[in-house]
Amino acid sequence: MRRRKVAGAMEALLGYTEYAVGNYMEMAGKWADCFGNDHPIHIELGAGRGKFSVTLAENHPEINFIAIEIKEEILLKAVEKANEKELKNIRFICMDIKDMLSVFKADEIDLIYLNFSDPWPKKRHFKRRLTYRGFLEMYKTILKSGAQIHFKTDGEELFEFSLNEMLEMHFKIRNVTLNLHREDSLLDIVTTEYEERYRVLGKHIYRLEATVVK
Amino acid sequence: MRRRKVAGAMEALLGYTEYAVGNYMEMAGKWADCFGNDHPIHIELGAGRGKFSVTLAENHPEINFIAIEIKEEILLKAVEKANEKELKNIRFICMDIKDMLSVFKADEIDLIYLNFSDPWPKKRHFKRRLTYRGFLEMYKTILKSGAQIHFKTDGEELFEFSLNEMLEMHFKIRNVTLNLHREDSLLDIVTTEYEERYRVLGKHIYRLEATVVK
Repeated sequence: MRRRKVAGAMEALLGYTEYAVGNYMEMAGKWADCFGNDHPIHIELGAGRGKFSVTLAENHPEINFIAIEIKEEILLKAVEKANEKELKNIRFICMDIKDMLSVFKADEIDLIYLNFSDPWPKKRHFKRRLTYRGFLEMYKTILKSGAQIHFKTDGEELFEFSLNEMLEMHFKIRNVTLNLHREDSLLDIVTTEYEERYRVLGKHIYRLEATVVK
Repeated sequence: MRRRKVAGAMEALLGYTEYAVGNYMEMAGKWADCFGNDHPIHIELGAGRGKFSVTLAENHPEINFIAIEIKEEILLKAVEKANEKELKNIRFICMDIKDMLSVFKADEIDLIYLNFSDPWPKKRHFKRRLTYRGFLEMYKTILKSGAQIHFKTDGEELFEFSLNEMLEMHFKIRNVTLNLHREDSLLDIVTTEYEERYRVLGKHIYRLEATVVK
């Protein structure tokens, strides 16, 4: 299915100059300046409509968030949420993850969230999965040593693939869960829009934490 | 449920003097002598009726197998299978795994199979699971450096627990699968009796390989 472009979505997005960063290709090493402080920086890759990052930003003023999404009309929804809440500690970039090394400097980032990434289920598309080792190599570069990736997905095969890729790439894996919502005590975790719909169907959500060892 | 003891099962078992090792507490460091060669030694913990180990022993005369099971009446079935096939490269021990360090010397073992271990689902029983770190510590002792544990189970929670325990204990994990029989190409793998019944129900079987790093 071809992606339907919403006329003017990019213009509307970039109109939010406090939130949407248009000149992201010139920002490597300058994110602390952009936020005006040296708080830790957490980024979400494939942030969609932004519920996850916006909720975290609201609850954690001591952390800076950057939400990245390739579809401008979707990211616009996220920006609108942040604008409504007048958040100061979140920015948004409409970009392709593969350009990441032009956007962030080595060791600039403290945590990467990967939530419900596209599973690219066909074997021949495995290099497009955001946990393919080519991407993991980039994440390792921009993350500080000891920093983490928090990954969750409803895709059994994507989770299996991702876990094995991360193990091969010598990330230190911790807190693997094969059914995130198994226990009621976990119901207060921050969810994405997608996850919320999925959870009520009683389907499995997989999660892990991967630490960078440099 | 209390375990029903079959009268005379232990006597019947020990009657197979070529197969059942009664003096196992005196065998540490002597297994190569027992087999009369220095082939690699693979052990299965919780071998049940022995289909898995007996099949492997039949197909791999270049490897020595030791099948361990705590229930003598069940292990007797395994011994009968080996006896029928006149296998030379397999032995059986009726014992509790917790005595393992009295039975094997450090670095004596090349591979441990854990197939469909008791999941001990209640949280307070976690120390009884055969992948609890106390057991993993013992496995690490008797395994050579670089040797592996091959673990499979149908228990989602046991798998999750085991993976996390192994990661915490610094095993190097590889080839994780969350659905062993997803692909037809894997249908030629050696299965246990339990697994075979389970597989035809289309349920998930989880598997991983853990390498000892000393």
